[in-house]
Amino acid sequence: MTTSSHHHHPSEPPTAHPSASGKGTGSPSFDPIAVADDLARTFAATAIERDKLGGTAKRERDQLRASGLLALSVPTSLGGHGRSWSLVLDVVRRLARVDGSLAHLFGFHHLLLGTARLFSPEAQWAPWLRSTVEHSWFWGNALNPLDTRTTIVARDGLTHLQTHPQTHQIDGQKSFCSGASDSDRLVVSALDPDKRLVVAVVPTTRAGILILDDWDNMGQRQTDSGQVRFEGVVVDESEILRQPGPLGSVFASLRPCIAQLVLTNVYLGLGEGALDEGARWTRGNGRPWVTSGVERPSDDPYVLHHAGEFWVALAGARALADAAARQLDEAWGRGDALTAAERADTALGIGTAKVAATRAGLAVASGIFEITGARATAARAGLDRFWRNLRTHTLHDPVDYRLRELGRWVLTGAPPRPSFYS
Amino acid sequence: MTTSSHHHHPSEPPTAHPSASGKGTGSPSFDPIAVADDLARTFAATAIERDKLGGTAKRERDQLRASGLLALSVPTSLGGHGRSWSLVLDVVRRLARVDGSLAHLFGFHHLLLGTARLFSPEAQWAPWLRSTVEHSWFWGNALNPLDTRTTIVARDGLTHLQTHPQTHQIDGQKSFCSGASDSDRLVVSALDPDKRLVVAVVPTTRAGILILDDWDNMGQRQTDSGQVRFEGVVVDESEILRQPGPLGSVFASLRPCIAQLVLTNVYLGLGEGALDEGARWTRGNGRPWVTSGVERPSDDPYVLHHAGEFWVALAGARALADAAARQLDEAWGRGDALTAAERADTALGIGTAKVAATRAGLAVASGIFEITGARATAARAGLDRFWRNLRTHTLHDPVDYRLRELGRWVLTGAPPRPSFYS
Amino acid sequence: MTTSSHHHHPSEPPTAHPSASGKGTGSPSFDPIAVADDLARTFAATAIERDKLGGTAKRERDQLRASGLLALSVPTSLGGHGRSWSLVLDVVRRLARVDGSLAHLFGFHHLLLGTARLFSPEAQWAPWLRSTVEHSWFWGNALNPLDTRTTIVARDGLTHLQTHPQTHQIDGQKSFCSGASDSDRLVVSALDPDKRLVVAVVPTTRAGILILDDWDNMGQRQTDSGQVRFEGVVVDESEILRQPGPLGSVFASLRPCIAQLVLTNVYLGLGEGALDEGARWTRGNGRPWVTSGVERPSDDPYVLHHAGEFWVALAGARALADAAARQLDEAWGRGDALTAAERADTALGIGTAKVAATRAGLAVASGIFEITGARATAARAGLDRFWRNLRTHTLHDPVDYRLRELGRWVLTGAPPRPSFYS
Amino acid sequence: MTTSSHHHHPSEPPTAHPSASGKGTGSPSFDPIAVADDLARTFAATAIERDKLGGTAKRERDQLRASGLLALSVPTSLGGHGRSWSLVLDVVRRLARVDGSLAHLFGFHHLLLGTARLFSPEAQWAPWLRSTVEHSWFWGNALNPLDTRTTIVARDGLTHLQTHPQTHQIDGQKSFCSGASDSDRLVVSALDPDKRLVVAVVPTTRAGILILDDWDNMGQRQTDSGQVRFEGVVVDESEILRQPGPLGSVFASLRPCIAQLVLTNVYLGLGEGALDEGARWTRGNGRPWVTSGVERPSDDPYVLHHAGEFWVALAGARALADAAARQLDEAWGRGDALTAAERADTALGIGTAKVAATRAGLAVASGIFEITGARATAARAGLDRFWRNLRTHTLHDPVDYRLRELGRWVLTGAPPRPSFYS
Repeated sequence: MTTSSHHHHPSEPPTAHPSASGKGTGSPSFDPIAVADDLARTFAATAIERDKLGGTAKRERDQLRASGLLALSVPTSLGGHGRSWSLVLDVVRRLARVDGSLAHLFGFHHLLLGTARLFSPEAQWAPWLRSTVEHSWFWGNALNPLDTRTTIVARDGLTHLQTHPQTHQIDGQKSFCSGASDSDRLVVSALDPDKRLVVAVVPTTRAGILILDDWDNMGQRQTDSGQVRFEGVVVDESEILRQPGPLGSVFASLRPCIAQLVLTNVYLGLGEGALDEGARWTRGNGRPWVTSGVERPSDDPYVLHHAGEFWVALAGARALADAAARQLDEAWGRGDALTAAERADTALGIGTAKVAATRAGLAVASGIFEITGARATAARAGLDRFWRNLRTHTLHDPVDYRLRELGRWVLTGAPPRPSFYS
Repeated sequence: MTTSSHHHHPSEPPTAHPSASGKGTGSPSFDPIAVADDLARTFAATAIERDKLGGTAKRERDQLRASGLLALSVPTSLGGHGRSWSLVLDVVRRLARVDGSLAHLFGFHHLLLGTARLFSPEAQWAPWLRSTVEHSWFWGNALNPLDTRTTIVARDGLTHLQTHPQTHQIDGQKSFCSGASDSDRLVVSALDPDKRLVVAVVPTTRAGILILDDWDNMGQRQTDSGQVRFEGVVVDESEILRQPGPLGSVFASLRPCIAQLVLTNVYLGLGEGALDEGARWTRGNGRPWVTSGVERPSDDPYVLHHAGEFWVALAGARALADAAARQLDEAWGRGDALTAAERADTALGIGTAKVAATRAGLAVASGIFEITGARATAARAGLDRFWRNLRTHTLHDPVDYRLRELGRWVLTGAPPRPSFYS
Repeated sequence: MTTSSHHHHPSEPPTAHPSASGKGTGSPSFDPIAVADDLARTFAATAIERDKLGGTAKRERDQLRASGLLALSVPTSLGGHGRSWSLVLDVVRRLARVDGSLAHLFGFHHLLLGTARLFSPEAQWAPWLRSTVEHSWFWGNALNPLDTRTTIVARDGLTHLQTHPQTHQIDGQKSFCSGASDSDRLVVSALDPDKRLVVAVVPTTRAGILILDDWDNMGQRQTDSGQVRFEGVVVDESEILRQPGPLGSVFASLRPCIAQLVLTNVYLGLGEGALDEGARWTRGNGRPWVTSGVERPSDDPYVLHHAGEFWVALAGARALADAAARQLDEAWGRGDALTAAERADTALGIGTAKVAATRAGLAVASGIFEITGARATAARAGLDRFWRNLRTHTLHDPVDYRLRELGRWVLTGAPPRPSFYS
Repeated sequence: MTTSSHHHHPSEPPTAHPSASGKGTGSPSFDPIAVADDLARTFAATAIERDKLGGTAKRERDQLRASGLLALSVPTSLGGHGRSWSLVLDVVRRLARVDGSLAHLFGFHHLLLGTARLFSPEAQWAPWLRSTVEHSWFWGNALNPLDTRTTIVARDGLTHLQTHPQTHQIDGQKSFCSGASDSDRLVVSALDPDKRLVVAVVPTTRAGILILDDWDNMGQRQTDSGQVRFEGVVVDESEILRQPGPLGSVFASLRPCIAQLVLTNVYLGLGEGALDEGARWTRGNGRPWVTSGVERPSDDPYVLHHAGEFWVALAGARALADAAARQLDEAWGRGDALTAAERADTALGIGTAKVAATRAGLAVASGIFEITGARATAARAGLDRFWRNLRTHTLHDPVDYRLRELGRWVLTGAPPRPSFYS
């Protein structure tokens, strides 16, 4: 139990143990929370400037590589830290408090490692994960099922009747390829001649892969979520995730659950970060309103009211996100024994948390200015980046459809149908 | 992990174990959750009719006496079930899903037992709790610090310089005395000549106690929260809770935490009950809107949206209430070793949950009709009782002041100051 | 311009002239606003008691008959007051501030008079309206297009190929027949053998009409909105509204516009009434919260905040409702020259006002208790009736579908398709 | 009445005449609405780029000078267009739909002209206004009562006992001086030795005035709201507004009313602009969500719902703003006959509109992305500028204190106390 004899960091629930994360079984001397908090402090120092610049956060990506955190979810047998999803997500949230872009890239790196584990047999993914630890690989994303412009065909002239020709070729273009720039491995999706989704893992340096570096958005500006072009990119059969393939089993269908919970924790961290920074600004610079009759903003009844509201919203989302992470850990631990009903429970828990984090994050990021007052709108304060990041990222897939899914389950008991978005 | 292969009761989170409660150490054959759910089914059958009638739910109170649930929090060494606050609060919530009044009376019975334990030494409270088990006593409330019309004076002519005369006399009147009617023991507060609050435990049958049975409110209609008059009621020194007395130690100041968390779980149960009944009504009687183009309400996108929203709101409040109950269990277990900082954490966690439950409960109880449509406003459906109960009960103390307390802590780190309301 | 040197009635906007209504051209000595306010005061004295009783407000209906207000919309040439819809709706709102049921019955009386005028030629409706003035007829509703259990067939053996046999027979049952009890004329709808909607005006005393008096709802308890049974009710061809018939022309399709604006003004009046009564209660009985540090509730920053919020919500809805009423007056004045585009504008303005009034009304009626505090939940205060009335009445048709209609227009320019609900 | 046979621009209410503005009495051939709409189209073409650049919108300011719109509120007798505040505010709103900064500068120019008229006698202000027309002066703001760092002292050695020495000297610094850059006249406030606020009108080129051009904020980026330094700036007695002086009469206390209503219309225009641009984007680029089952976003029930909600919120704020503008016109027309009660009514109406516009604007500007989807977050779409502009500008003074003022009036009838912010 934490104490409140000194001032809590507002992103720390008064109730919580220092970290909501399970401890995992990995290298005991490695304290990922401490490492993450250190990195977060480093990232914070330049976050406002880098948000302005956009582009690839090369130095910070290398700091992540050097930190060991990219090996967090890799089994200890392969040299990794063997930590739980709960812990990975806790780190995502801590990074997001100061930098939504890096939090997203970090979370998706582990999602992509998990994708390999879910969609292919251990014999296939184990070497990739071992190399990830050895070479500090950063994985990037080119798996965007909504963008159907990329195709894969057999390269050796065999028809699609032969399901496994030895080499293939990918052509086309993909948008929203977060973290492709400066990545070491790319997870790529493409449609085969039968319009089936094929997912492969390839080195980013593979000939024919062109990263367009064309991401210029209002938020999440250093996620490099631009387009990647594929021109005759050769892919070996051994690089394709066939067994069980994309969403090819109940267990494999945990993939979107992980993705959604990464997003959830980015949103939550951004909301917490907005409250942290807004409260700090107010303590340092805030002035009471001229007719408030009080001496400090922290005596103003309306300022206190807003702060209380923000806290309650974030605390609720956090409690749901933590519970959902525990569900995910449990479901992950079930492996191929995972049932459809258990998967549904996990998806519902995660969906609930995601809606709450979306709402809480946006409310805090927009509302925090009611606490700080007008002078906190100075560009140098950078306080608008939380809203811009949240607003951009919360559109990944519509929260309205998450609510529809939850509502259907409440009214009819029908579970969400697994897809890349639910 | 529950399964969703069959339809979840919407009040069961998809993630949860069947009960959020700790198991406690008491009589292993006694399953309080099963007993509570049985009772809840019984109460549900007459809830609408009893809401209309108001007055004392004598038969249901006797069913609670017979159920053994009134001994739930009593230590096993005294013949009770020795269960945790988490479990008591889980039962409160389950009862509140069908009957907010009985849930409140049940919760306050345990709060009053806890009050004796917090404000007096074991030698004093142990016999009361043992008798509570033996005689199935139901405790009632006449402790209302806001109503200062009741006084206590030494009866034997001693001045207040002698702090412990042997007999005292209470005179005056108190409002909001929930559960006083048909109670066996009353916890009474009064002001001594120095305006200090004195709390005593007396038999409800004590001469001079007049229960006015004048509770006629828009909601919580069977809580008997009317007035009690005291006319020369003799109280023995041994009945007064002196060591450490009301809020007389850090541990004793857990009392309002328990009270607030009982309220929280009543609100949450009422919200869950509204969703349960509304969803059931809609499945059984609902018709799609004429221009919706769908065949069943559960295919209407707006109906699903509302149901999803209600679910998310309740799930967030539930996660916070469960976490707060775990905090309370832990704080209770610390006994006199409890520090002010630990108490503050507990109070903040409970305050957070209370705000969330207030908001979620009211939103669902008023909004559920968007799902059911107009015909569910028939008096026989009784669906308005959830809002009336919530609206009445959520005014116990203003949620605005709970938010102020949370906001102050967020901005300054100042803990809530213990009082009977925080 | 009103002055604020004395205290405004909160339902009076600070900006407004005493009445938003046009003056009309009728009997100049008749001041309908003064008459309505007098009646409202009378109704207020018994509103809480009558809400409890439910049933037919016979005495109050007779007071409305005696007041002359039932002739408000009847042309002066037929002996009526010839006032505008704006004025009729202003009276609806004033009555709703104290009694939602009577406001609804009064508004629907005029809607039914308007229905005759819209669906039939003047030669047909003029005698009915003249008699309405002469005999103080109160019109009641049995036109419910969603309830298809009532049929009309030719009574003289003619087939439906002959469209106008001289006598017809209505059989079946209708729900939600507001104001049928104690009415003098009923507007009835039924389906002919070709499933076309037929609307007729008949004396309520016609043989075979059975008013079931079975309305027992959580709100709007004196609207007598129960069922009516028709057993071989003979209807003459001259009683059927054929030219242009139900929604049979652009002008005739103003009918649902009027209906929706009556509802809007009932909602708005109920919201204003809740604020009026809550504010009055607070001035008379309110106590500041114990930790507020202020002496009166009206110095509590949160109480003021809620009151401000309620005011803004109601003021916005009122401004929209007043603008919509002016649109309706203008559209009504256009008669058969009314174009589809003009009708669409009117419907959109009314739909906008209705959504706003629904939201504002519910928010105030549920939230007003944050101002009054717990003691205002006493049954004798009757303050919950505003929420119960609003909640019941706002389900007439789903506000979600009104929003869909508005959203479609915003995005595509498509006008709402005229129906009995839009 | 407009027609909806073609598609309404969403910022045009379906009910409204083309312009809500009064016609005024000025040069009949000058159509300010047409001129404003032309300018708005021109500004729109570069708005996204200029938002990025920040700094002084020199070209656009000159286009405003050339347009004649800076003479809009100047009496015809002095060569101006003699139009009403309603019309000026309508132009503010139209400009704000595409460019919040220019709208603000334009509105404050007229506010500053009005300030001269309210705080000084006609003989003093008439020449200034005449020159404003002749030389197309743009007025800028250095009147910020919250910033007390600027002082004024008698320059000719006279003590403050002589209230009117002939020359004075201003020293110090002021923040939030919107529109000072590139202005022709500045309205400056400073504190005299008795701490009384003194307001003067001086040429911006006056020696000692240093415009720091240091405005770099997250929103309203071309308002030049940076700091101005005054170093021994000589001011002649004839440049000081003494009769009746700042807020020196009831009529003079209309000044903050005008300021608040300018802000209100900037907020409203920004909200309307967000809906316009979001809807246009969606029509042109939007894609339906993959599981929506519809072909176009405008068939998606949730997209329609959001659009409907946005429309209702803006329509309510617009109706209030238009009503408040009519109140202001009327109050302005009363001149020195204006009573305190009339002024209070005006202030309350404006305050109500301001709260509604704040809420509606922010809700639309943040929520519009629910309609457009993720791809509209591209920097080139510039859709975030509406939120950034609104968020920045709505902090001018806290909406919480506007609500407190309204709440106090509702509960007690106490009028707002005139100040520079109410």
